[in-house]
Amino acid sequence: MSVIIGEKEFFKGIDQIKYEGPESKNPLAFRWYDENRVVAGKTMKEHLRFAGAYWHSFCGNGADPFGEATHLFEWDKKQDAVERAKDKMDAAFEFLTKMNLPYYCFHDVDVVDYTSDVVENERRLQALVDYAKQKQASSGVKLLWGTANLFSNRRYMNGAATNPDFHVLSHGGAQVKAALDATIALGGENYVFWGGREGYMTLLNTDMKREQEHLARFLHAAKDYARKQGFKGTFFIEPKPCEPSKHQYDYDAATVISFLRQYDLLNDFKLNLEVNHATLAGHTFQHELQVAVDAGLLGSMDANRGDYQNGWDTDQFPNNINELVESMLIILEGGGFKGGGINFDAKIRRNSTDNADLFYAHIGGMDTFARALVVADNILQHSEYKKIRTDRYASFDNGKGKAFEEGKLTLEDLRAFAVENGEPVLKSGRQEYLENLINWYI
Amino acid sequence: MSVIIGEKEFFKGIDQIKYEGPESKNPLAFRWYDENRVVAGKTMKEHLRFAGAYWHSFCGNGADPFGEATHLFEWDKKQDAVERAKDKMDAAFEFLTKMNLPYYCFHDVDVVDYTSDVVENERRLQALVDYAKQKQASSGVKLLWGTANLFSNRRYMNGAATNPDFHVLSHGGAQVKAALDATIALGGENYVFWGGREGYMTLLNTDMKREQEHLARFLHAAKDYARKQGFKGTFFIEPKPCEPSKHQYDYDAATVISFLRQYDLLNDFKLNLEVNHATLAGHTFQHELQVAVDAGLLGSMDANRGDYQNGWDTDQFPNNINELVESMLIILEGGGFKGGGINFDAKIRRNSTDNADLFYAHIGGMDTFARALVVADNILQHSEYKKIRTDRYASFDNGKGKAFEEGKLTLEDLRAFAVENGEPVLKSGRQEYLENLINWYI
Amino acid sequence: MSVIIGEKEFFKGIDQIKYEGPESKNPLAFRWYDENRVVAGKTMKEHLRFAGAYWHSFCGNGADPFGEATHLFEWDKKQDAVERAKDKMDAAFEFLTKMNLPYYCFHDVDVVDYTSDVVENERRLQALVDYAKQKQASSGVKLLWGTANLFSNRRYMNGAATNPDFHVLSHGGAQVKAALDATIALGGENYVFWGGREGYMTLLNTDMKREQEHLARFLHAAKDYARKQGFKGTFFIEPKPCEPSKHQYDYDAATVISFLRQYDLLNDFKLNLEVNHATLAGHTFQHELQVAVDAGLLGSMDANRGDYQNGWDTDQFPNNINELVESMLIILEGGGFKGGGINFDAKIRRNSTDNADLFYAHIGGMDTFARALVVADNILQHSEYKKIRTDRYASFDNGKGKAFEEGKLTLEDLRAFAVENGEPVLKSGRQEYLENLINWYI
Amino acid sequence: MSVIIGEKEFFKGIDQIKYEGPESKNPLAFRWYDENRVVAGKTMKEHLRFAGAYWHSFCGNGADPFGEATHLFEWDKKQDAVERAKDKMDAAFEFLTKMNLPYYCFHDVDVVDYTSDVVENERRLQALVDYAKQKQASSGVKLLWGTANLFSNRRYMNGAATNPDFHVLSHGGAQVKAALDATIALGGENYVFWGGREGYMTLLNTDMKREQEHLARFLHAAKDYARKQGFKGTFFIEPKPCEPSKHQYDYDAATVISFLRQYDLLNDFKLNLEVNHATLAGHTFQHELQVAVDAGLLGSMDANRGDYQNGWDTDQFPNNINELVESMLIILEGGGFKGGGINFDAKIRRNSTDNADLFYAHIGGMDTFARALVVADNILQHSEYKKIRTDRYASFDNGKGKAFEEGKLTLEDLRAFAVENGEPVLKSGRQEYLENLINWYI
Repeated sequence: MSVIIGEKEFFKGIDQIKYEGPESKNPLAFRWYDENRVVAGKTMKEHLRFAGAYWHSFCGNGADPFGEATHLFEWDKKQDAVERAKDKMDAAFEFLTKMNLPYYCFHDVDVVDYTSDVVENERRLQALVDYAKQKQASSGVKLLWGTANLFSNRRYMNGAATNPDFHVLSHGGAQVKAALDATIALGGENYVFWGGREGYMTLLNTDMKREQEHLARFLHAAKDYARKQGFKGTFFIEPKPCEPSKHQYDYDAATVISFLRQYDLLNDFKLNLEVNHATLAGHTFQHELQVAVDAGLLGSMDANRGDYQNGWDTDQFPNNINELVESMLIILEGGGFKGGGINFDAKIRRNSTDNADLFYAHIGGMDTFARALVVADNILQHSEYKKIRTDRYASFDNGKGKAFEEGKLTLEDLRAFAVENGEPVLKSGRQEYLENLINWYI
Repeated sequence: MSVIIGEKEFFKGIDQIKYEGPESKNPLAFRWYDENRVVAGKTMKEHLRFAGAYWHSFCGNGADPFGEATHLFEWDKKQDAVERAKDKMDAAFEFLTKMNLPYYCFHDVDVVDYTSDVVENERRLQALVDYAKQKQASSGVKLLWGTANLFSNRRYMNGAATNPDFHVLSHGGAQVKAALDATIALGGENYVFWGGREGYMTLLNTDMKREQEHLARFLHAAKDYARKQGFKGTFFIEPKPCEPSKHQYDYDAATVISFLRQYDLLNDFKLNLEVNHATLAGHTFQHELQVAVDAGLLGSMDANRGDYQNGWDTDQFPNNINELVESMLIILEGGGFKGGGINFDAKIRRNSTDNADLFYAHIGGMDTFARALVVADNILQHSEYKKIRTDRYASFDNGKGKAFEEGKLTLEDLRAFAVENGEPVLKSGRQEYLENLINWYI
Repeated sequence: MSVIIGEKEFFKGIDQIKYEGPESKNPLAFRWYDENRVVAGKTMKEHLRFAGAYWHSFCGNGADPFGEATHLFEWDKKQDAVERAKDKMDAAFEFLTKMNLPYYCFHDVDVVDYTSDVVENERRLQALVDYAKQKQASSGVKLLWGTANLFSNRRYMNGAATNPDFHVLSHGGAQVKAALDATIALGGENYVFWGGREGYMTLLNTDMKREQEHLARFLHAAKDYARKQGFKGTFFIEPKPCEPSKHQYDYDAATVISFLRQYDLLNDFKLNLEVNHATLAGHTFQHELQVAVDAGLLGSMDANRGDYQNGWDTDQFPNNINELVESMLIILEGGGFKGGGINFDAKIRRNSTDNADLFYAHIGGMDTFARALVVADNILQHSEYKKIRTDRYASFDNGKGKAFEEGKLTLEDLRAFAVENGEPVLKSGRQEYLENLINWYI
Repeated sequence: MSVIIGEKEFFKGIDQIKYEGPESKNPLAFRWYDENRVVAGKTMKEHLRFAGAYWHSFCGNGADPFGEATHLFEWDKKQDAVERAKDKMDAAFEFLTKMNLPYYCFHDVDVVDYTSDVVENERRLQALVDYAKQKQASSGVKLLWGTANLFSNRRYMNGAATNPDFHVLSHGGAQVKAALDATIALGGENYVFWGGREGYMTLLNTDMKREQEHLARFLHAAKDYARKQGFKGTFFIEPKPCEPSKHQYDYDAATVISFLRQYDLLNDFKLNLEVNHATLAGHTFQHELQVAVDAGLLGSMDANRGDYQNGWDTDQFPNNINELVESMLIILEGGGFKGGGINFDAKIRRNSTDNADLFYAHIGGMDTFARALVVADNILQHSEYKKIRTDRYASFDNGKGKAFEEGKLTLEDLRAFAVENGEPVLKSGRQEYLENLINWYI
C-alpha cells in the first residue's frame, strides 16, 4: 500500500508505519503486526482485516458531555460542505495508508455533513462517493462496510425505524437507501445497522412490540432493496444494550439472534460485535463471540475496550493481551469472521492532542491483535487446550450419552442409568490449569 | 382458609393475618391486601395468587458465605429425615395458613433431605407427598409449582442438564422425574426449571453449543414424560444471568425466549420472572415483564427485590411502591399471569431473628402488591395513560404508515414519502408528565 | 413571588404554578408542595429551599454524545453575547417565578458565553451581574450558590486546579475569582466547587499526590480571597466519582471529608451532595446524606435521580417516593441543610420537547419532596421509628458499655466481661418491620 | 525451604515446585518465579513475600450460597477438634513448603474450630500455637499476619466492634485478645482487621456515627493491648465496600485513611489492600495502591482477582499480566510494602477438585507476579515512563508554579498570571503512547 496524500499533508512528519519487530525502539513502528507473516495458513493481513473508522478518527473532535472539542482538525475548515468533506477524505486516506490499514468504514454523515433536505444529502454523498472511488483505486484501500447514521439528527430522538411517527421512519428509509447506494458503488463488502435510538427512554410511553415489528419490517425493506441492486455482501447488526437510549432492542448477541430468527432475517444478517458493548451488557467479549460463533453468525467486530469502572462507552483502544488472546482463540476456532474484519471503533482520549497520538493508538491496537493471533495459534497448535475440552464431553460421544444427544432417551431411561451407575465421581473443571496454559504462551 | 397447626405450634402467639385497612395500628395485619376486594373484575386473591416459598422460609437458615446459620429452626431437630421433614411441613402449613397464602412452591430437597441414593430419595419424597396431600386437603392451600433442585448437590458442580459428564446428567433426569411425579400427585399447577449451574465457570473449558443442545434435549424429555403422565400445567423457565455460575444460559427473558424458539419449546414453556434476577441482568423488572408479555409468555413471577449497590441475589422482600405500580401496569395490560402467580422468593435478613419477622416480611410484600394493583388499576381506568401511548403510534394506524406495517412499502417508497413530506416536527416523549401521572395515583 | 416576564414571554400559555391539593386534575399544579404549610415548625418553603439550575434548564440543549441539540431555545438567538445572555436571564427569571422557585444557581459560563480572554469574560459577567441584581430585586428570587465552570473549556482537559501545567491552573484561578466576585455581588448564600476534571484519565501519567496538594492550595486561595471580600457563606464541595474523568478526586462524601480534614478546610467547606453521584459511586443517597450529617457537613443537595441500569449521569428528575422519604428522614433528623437547599440539578429528557415539559419535571420533583417531607415528619412524630434505633444501642448508655464508650475499658476488660456473661442472645435487626413502617406512612 | 510432611502426606505425588524457566513443559514448575533472582537490588523472594492463606486453602470447602461442599478434605476427619486442627496444620505446612511459600496467614477459627466458650477457645488456640511453633521452626515458614474472625459466628450478625449490643462487642474483644496473643507468640509480623460485619444491613436501624466511634475505641484498645505485650509489628485494616454487609465502614482505601486520621490511628495502622475489594468498590487495584502509597500507608496486599461481570467476591487467582504490571509499577515506585507482603487470599474454583489444582492456582499467581515484577522493573529502569510523568509537572518546579505550590500565591496572583500569559497551549496526556510502552515490555 502506498501512502496517498491529498492537496495538503495533514499528518506531517509521520511516515508509513512498518514492521520492525519486538526489539524496535521506534514508537512509530509495529512490533508484532507483520502483514505478510503467515499464521495458521493465512497472512496476518488476511486474518485480521483491520479497518479505520471514519467517525472517531476524522470526525470525533474530543467533545464530551462536559466539555467542548479539543481536537481541532485542519481538514474541517473550508466553508463549502463538499469541499470540506474532500479535505476530510484526503486526511482519511493519508492516515489509512500511512497506517497501513487495508479497510475503512463510514456512516453517511461522517463522509459529508447532511442537511435536512433528502435530495441535497444524496447529491453531497454522491459527490464524495465519486471522490472516494478515486482514492480507493489509487491506494488499494477497500470499504469494509458502510452504514447510515440514524441517531444523531434530532428527528431520530424517539427512534428511526422504531419511531412512533411514521414520518420520521420514512426519513430513516431515505437515508439507508442512499447509504446502501453509496456502499454498493464503492464495492463495500458489508453493510451495518447500529440502532442507538432503536429502543426506549421509558417504557411508560412505549409499545415495545409494535416498535420491534417495525424494525423488522424496516430491515426487510432495506435488505430487499440492496439485493435488488445486486448487493452480495452481508448485513450486520451491531448489538449494544444502552446508550444513548435507556434500553436498546439490539441488546446483546443472544437478543439480536433471537430477533433475527423470529423475523426471518437469519439468512442475510450476521453480527458485528463490539468489545465495549459486551462490557456494557454485562458480558465478556469472549462470551459474545462464542454466542455468535455457535449460531454461525460471527460477521465482524468493532475493536476497542471499555473501562470496567465507568459505565459508558469509552471506546478506548484495545491493549489487554489476556483478553485478546482468549478472544482470538474463539475467532480462530470459529473459522474467523464471516465477511467482516476488525474495525477500530475506538477513539483517542480527549486529551491526546498530539499529531502522533492517533498513530500510537492504532499501532497499539494492531500490535496487540497481531500478538494475540500468534499466541492463540500457538495454543491451538501446540498445547492440549483443545483436547482438554473435547475429552471433557467424551461421555456423549458414544453409548447412552450419544443416544441422549440423539434424542433417543426418555426421562425414565435417564433415571434407570442413574440408578444403575450410582453416584458419579467429581471431575475437576481445571480452570486454573487452563488459565496458566494461556499465560505460558503469552 | 383456616389455620392448620400440626403436632406442635411453631409460630406461637401469632394469629391469622387479617385485613384491617390503611389506618390499622396493628403491625400483624394487612393494610392493603383484602383478598376478597374486587379490582378490575377479579378479587385480589385471584389477581395476585400469592405463594410461600418453602426454601427461603422453612429451609434458609441465615447462613451466608461469611457466616453460619442464625435462624435455628424448631422444626429441624428430629433425627429421622422423614419425621424431620414432616415437622417442617407442619411449620410450613401453619405459616401459610396463618399468613393467608393460597399457594406454596417447593424444590424436592426443600421438602425432605436427599441422600445420594436415587431410590431412597424417591421413597422419602413419596412419604412427604402423602403427608402434603392431607395438609392441602385440610387447609385448601394449593401447590403453585414444584421443581427439582439441580444445583446444590456437589455432583452438579459442572452443571446438571449441561454437565459434560452424561452420568451426572442422568441423575438430573432421575431427580426431575421424581419431582414431576410429586408435582402431579399434588395437583401442582405448574413446573419450574431454574438452572443455576446450567452455564459455565469459564469458557476455556466449555463447549457452549453442545451444552445448550443437551439442555434442550433434557427439557424435551422432561416435558414428554410429564405430558405422558397427564400433566396439563405449564412449564416455566426462570431466567437468571449469573450466580452461582459465572454465566447462566437462561440469562434473561429475551435469551430464554430465543432458546425456547430455537429448540421448539414455545408451546409448553413460559417464563417465571424474578425481580432480583432482572436487576442482576441489567434490566428493570418492568422490562423483563414487557418482553415476556410481548411474546405471550408471562407465566409467573418470583417476587423480591435486589440491592442496587450489591451485585448478588439479595432476595429481599419487595417494598418499592413506584416499581411495583409500574410492574402491575404491565401485568394488568398484559392480561395477568399465564398459569402462575406471585411467589415470594424472598428471604428475611440474616439478622431478622424474631418469630414475627417472617410475618412482617410477607405482610409488607403482600400489602405493597395489593396497593400497587389498586393504583395500577386506577391509572388504567381513570387516567389518559393508555391513550397517550396509543395516540403516539397513530401514524401507523392508517395510510402509508399502515401500509408500511403491512409490509407493503419498499425503501424507495419510504424515501419518496420523506422527500414529499419534508422534515418532520419533533414530538415530545412526555416522560416527566407520565412519571408525574404515576405518582398522582399512588 | 410575582411572575417576572422580560421583553418577550418565553413560556407562553403557562401561568404561575400553584398548590391545588392531591385531588387536583390540573397537571400544571402542585398536589403536595404548599409553600406556606408548616411542617415540623417551619414552612415547606423554609425546609426545602428549592433552586432552579441555570445550566440544565436554560443552557442544556438536549445534545448527547450520540446526537445533536433537540431543545432549540428562543432565548439563544441574538448575535451579541451579552444581549443573548440577557434574553436567557429573562427566560430564567420567567421560569423561576412561574415555577415558584425561591432560589437559583449558576456557573459563570451558564450566565454568559466566555471567550478565551480573561478580561473580556469579566466584563461580560459583570454586565450580567448588574442585570441579575435587578431581576432578583424585582422578583425576590435569591442566589443559592454560584460557581465557576472549570471543566468545559478545552484548556481544562487535563484538569483545572489539578492540571499538570501551572499556566492552566492560573486560568482556573482567574475564573474562580470572577465567579466569587459575582456570587458576592448577588448576595449568593454559598459557593460550590465541582471538579469534573480534577482527577485523572489514566494513572500512568498522573502524580496523584501532587495534584491533590495543588487542589488543596487552590481551595485555600479561593477561600482566603472570598473571606477577604467579606463573603460569609459556606463553600461546598460536590462529590462525584467519575465522568467526565475516569476517576475524580472528590469521589464521594467520605473521600471529600477526608480531604477537607487532611488539608485543614473543615471550617469553611461543607458538602453539596447529589443523588445521581451517589448512585455512580455505588452508594445509596441516604448513605451519602448520613455520612455528611455525622460529620456535621451536610451543606446542600443536588436533587435528581440516576438510572440503575445506565452507568452515567442521567440527571433525571426525582420521582421515587420511598427513596425520598428515607432521605428526608435523615435530613430532618440531621437538622436540615447547613446553608444550602435543594437544587434541581436535573434535566428533562432529550425528547421532552414541549414547552410544558420543563414545568412538569419541576412540579414532579417538588411535589415528591414535599410529600416525602410530610411523610418523614409523620414518621418521626408519630411512629416508634426513632425509639427502635435508640433502644438498640441502650447497652452503651450505662454500665460497662458506657465505660467502653468513654475509653475506660481495656481488651482484658472486654474479655472479662465476655467470660463473665457468656454467650449473648441474638437480637433481631427488625429490618422488614422498619421497611413496613415507612410504607405505612406513605 | 525443605518440605515438611506430617503424620500423613496429604498432597501425595506432588513434589516441591521449582523454577524451570519460561520454556519448561512441566505444569508443576515455576516459569517466572525464581526466588533468588535479583531484581532492583533485592531477590524476588524479598520483593514479593508471598503468603498462603489458611482459610481458602485449608478450610474453604467449595460450598457456595447455592451448593454444598465439593472439596472434601482428608485433614478434616478426626473427631477431636484439636487433633483435627493438627492434621489441618500438617496439611498446611506440607502445602506451604511444597509450594515454596515463605509465609502464611490465618484467622483464629481457621486454625482450630471455636466453641461458644471463650476459655475453651483460648485453650484450643494455645494448643495449636504450640504446634505451629514447631512447624515454623522446622520449615522456616513465617507468619505474615494473624487475625480474628469476627464475622462468621452468628453472634456477630449485627457487627462485632460495631454491634449495638455491648455484650457482643465484648466477645469480639476476647477473641482479638487471644488472636493477638497467638500472633505475638508465633512471631507474626503484622496483625489484620477485616470488618465484614462492621457496617450495616439497613440504615433504618443504624446509628452509624456511634458505631464508628465504637470501632475506633475497639481498635485503640486492641492496639494498646498488643503494644503492652511487646508487639512491634504493624496493624492493617483491610478495606472492602460490602459483602457480607450491605455497606461496610472500611469501604475503600480513602475511606479507611480518613477514619484512621480522624481517630488518631495513623501511627500504628496501615492498609492491607485486596484486588477483588477494589473491584467491588468501583476502583482499579492500581488506584487503591496509589492512594495508599501517597499516604505512606501501603502495608500489605491480598492477591486475587474479581470477575467484572459478577458483583461478589469471587477471589480468583490473579492471571492478568497487564493489571499486575501496572500494579507492580506503583508498588516499586512506592518503595514496596510497609511490613507486609502478598497474601493469596484466593480460592480455587468450586469445581477444581483435583489434588493438583491448588498448586496450579498458586503457581499461576506467583508466576504472574514474578513476571510483572521483572517487566515493571524494566520499565522503570529502561524506559522514559518515569521521565514523562516528571516532565509533565515541570511548571511547578520553579517560578510562579513553585511559588503556588509553596502557598505563596493568592487568587489575584493567579488571575494576573493568566491575564499576562494568555491562553495556554494544549498538552497531550499521551495515554495511548504510555499504554503501548507497557506492552512493549511485557
